[in-house]
Amino acid sequence: MGRWEPDARGRLLRAAIELFAERGYDATTAAQIAERAGLTKTTLFRQFADKREIVFQGQDSLVEAAAVGIGEAPADAGPLGLLAAGLRALSSHYGPAQRDIGRRLEPIIASSPELQERAAYKRSAITRALREALEGRISDGRLAALLADLGARAFYDGFDAWILLDGDEPLVESVLAELSEGEAAIRGLATAAGSY
Amino acid sequence: MGRWEPDARGRLLRAAIELFAERGYDATTAAQIAERAGLTKTTLFRQFADKREIVFQGQDSLVEAAAVGIGEAPADAGPLGLLAAGLRALSSHYGPAQRDIGRRLEPIIASSPELQERAAYKRSAITRALREALEGRISDGRLAALLADLGARAFYDGFDAWILLDGDEPLVESVLAELSEGEAAIRGLATAAGSY
Repeated sequence: MGRWEPDARGRLLRAAIELFAERGYDATTAAQIAERAGLTKTTLFRQFADKREIVFQGQDSLVEAAAVGIGEAPADAGPLGLLAAGLRALSSHYGPAQRDIGRRLEPIIASSPELQERAAYKRSAITRALREALEGRISDGRLAALLADLGARAFYDGFDAWILLDGDEPLVESVLAELSEGEAAIRGLATAAGSY
Repeated sequence: MGRWEPDARGRLLRAAIELFAERGYDATTAAQIAERAGLTKTTLFRQFADKREIVFQGQDSLVEAAAVGIGEAPADAGPLGLLAAGLRALSSHYGPAQRDIGRRLEPIIASSPELQERAAYKRSAITRALREALEGRISDGRLAALLADLGARAFYDGFDAWILLDGDEPLVESVLAELSEGEAAIRGLATAAGSY
């Protein structure tokens, strides 16, 4: 088998999802995943530290997308406009194939504390990327942090809503709808707040 | 050595922090931690699944404190009042000993991706506890989620500020100061928002 395998990472992801669904995450080995993907264990470990990382392979691209999206937003964008630019860039990484993967991964992640833990770390990495990119554009670090939380929640809740849809709606619509609802909730809170 | 060891968990935590600081997290074994604490490995593994869990031993109490604090808040508390009640309950778990531990743990956690990952999971568990308890008191689930994010950020940023202080200020002061600043930032955002 050659050193270079076309789409090795994608093949390993599909094989891993199949096996995790069939046998459970804990009972599946890296060797079984490589075999199912028609690849060697060496190829797998050249790409991933362990079976868990196969599932989270997109994290670095997402972190970079958030930074680029916010960094390249128009000079006159307000705080929420910057955040929306970051969310648009994040969402552009997801199409029909990623929706299918998301649907199939959801119950697998819910079944494994190890995967839930890794998922929490991925979310914290995306939140941090949003925060750091926002800090590069607005002077108020606390506001940047709160916007990053708002954005991460819109992204994750938008994703959860999106994988339940049947049509060919793009992810960005669900995410920006969540952002808009979140913004409205915050505005209501700010109006009502003041006493505690 | 008897089966029952007074304050075994605290002794293991102090021993772990010493060894992680001296030798590094990766190079320290559970056996070394037990030995340093004057306990057997069996005692350690009766209390903790692995060396990592020694550091995160307070998580269940914090999750419970958040739920109880919000659940027992006055009937007329507003959304931010409920959140503040949860943060007061969380903060009450920390005194001078916990501040010292927090100071010493910070560089250790920063040195280890494994610990950072586990820390992200702890934060997500606390955020979820706040969210679920808030959902039990206010009808708007989205607002509960956004408040939980705001509260978790106030708690963590307040903690980071607190461990830098020299006096005997209680944690709750730093946390509620962060909450107040966060609330002001959100109010400014809600006033300025509307176009993106």
